Amino acid sequence: MVPCPWFPEIAAYAKQHPELDWGIHSTFTSEWKYYKWDGVLPSSEIPSLVSKDGYMYSSVEEFAKNAKPADVEKELRAQIEKATSFGIKLTHIDNHMGSILASPEMIAVYQKVGKEYHLPVLAPTNMIHMMAPQMAKYIDTNNIVVVDNFVSAYPAIGADKWKDFYNQTIQNLKPGLNEIIFHLAFDDDEMKAIAVDHPDFGAVWRQRDFEYVTSDEFKNLLKQNSIYLITWGDIQKVMYK
Amino acid sequence: MVPCPWFPEIAAYAKQHPELDWGIHSTFTSEWKYYKWDGVLPSSEIPSLVSKDGYMYSSVEEFAKNAKPADVEKELRAQIEKATSFGIKLTHIDNHMGSILASPEMIAVYQKVGKEYHLPVLAPTNMIHMMAPQMAKYIDTNNIVVVDNFVSAYPAIGADKWKDFYNQTIQNLKPGLNEIIFHLAFDDDEMKAIAVDHPDFGAVWRQRDFEYVTSDEFKNLLKQNSIYLITWGDIQKVMYK
Repeated sequence: MVPCPWFPEIAAYAKQHPELDWGIHSTFTSEWKYYKWDGVLPSSEIPSLVSKDGYMYSSVEEFAKNAKPADVEKELRAQIEKATSFGIKLTHIDNHMGSILASPEMIAVYQKVGKEYHLPVLAPTNMIHMMAPQMAKYIDTNNIVVVDNFVSAYPAIGADKWKDFYNQTIQNLKPGLNEIIFHLAFDDDEMKAIAVDHPDFGAVWRQRDFEYVTSDEFKNLLKQNSIYLITWGDIQKVMYK
Repeated sequence: MVPCPWFPEIAAYAKQHPELDWGIHSTFTSEWKYYKWDGVLPSSEIPSLVSKDGYMYSSVEEFAKNAKPADVEKELRAQIEKATSFGIKLTHIDNHMGSILASPEMIAVYQKVGKEYHLPVLAPTNMIHMMAPQMAKYIDTNNIVVVDNFVSAYPAIGADKWKDFYNQTIQNLKPGLNEIIFHLAFDDDEMKAIAVDHPDFGAVWRQRDFEYVTSDEFKNLLKQNSIYLITWGDIQKVMYK
């Protein structure tokens, strides 16, 4: 998330670890109550992406109502260029909060820019069919990474069912390209303040994800179910060698 | 510090507490290694204040070498206007890291803007004589708050002498307008990450200040030495009633 205040910290780490996956989580929304960011570009160059408070819009709904595809394209390119200028070797692009599904024009921008920079672009078809089915036909399956099954924990899963949800997901995975997204953070004072008044995807949620993803249970389940882990770097090599 | 990522949090608190002092700590530098900010205005409007990484300069030295007074004036006004638009009732202006002492033209901007907005402006004469003696003659003592004695802990004071330094400062205060500046924060993971590689004014330093300023010893010393506390709001009433 290149526009965010801590970007230079992760950029320094990424520069030292080019062997890891480093994706642009293309960011066009600033969803927290008190911890905000604007674009990489000056707001005067991307006026349709910035609210009157000077930050990106809080919700995908407001973004979709206001954003112009030309501004999205400029800002997306600027996020990629800034990451590269900080020394990050990029492997892919995905998108924060699914904002890019707002219109066929934006989806086209996303695909075009990915192709141009030789970066695989995540297109989670099952999620698109669920969240924005009218957009599915605009996904160019020749030029984009179609994840057959995309999984992310959602608010209706109770905290006590968290482990069960992931365990069952893994046990029921079908052959094909699957992606499980985790939202990792510590339930500490900083994350609590960032996610204030926002339990969904909040501090406790992220600590739970962290505990699951670092557990032996998770590692063992992957092994027992013969799940073969691949990286975005692997995909990038196949697509753009 | 209006350009900083957490500004909306303190702004919400300030709006609910107009009885407290709320100053613009006019900010033209972004000094931490990994936690950065740019200006309130788009960088295209204040190009001389923004480094090639897209953030404000890290040091006063780089700021002084690059900044144009016209950009400083625009950004200072924008910081005041943004604070006001968030519902903050302002009481005064001071300045982050003394950057404004970079030139007579900048000092003139600072004084002019303060007067225009009816905001007292801090001019710590003893600090100016120490840090930038050649600037002392540009301080317009009719239109600015001249603090006779300005005190701030400095790196050469050892951690074990912290309390002694403040205690002795208070015991030796002379009649007049004195200001003691504290840099308050918790020595927690967030502050440690912000101040990484930067022990001066770092996380431990701020925790020490917090402990001193909330101690009974400090409160008792103020009483025993007949120190009369005034607010910036009091000064503002006298200057601009």
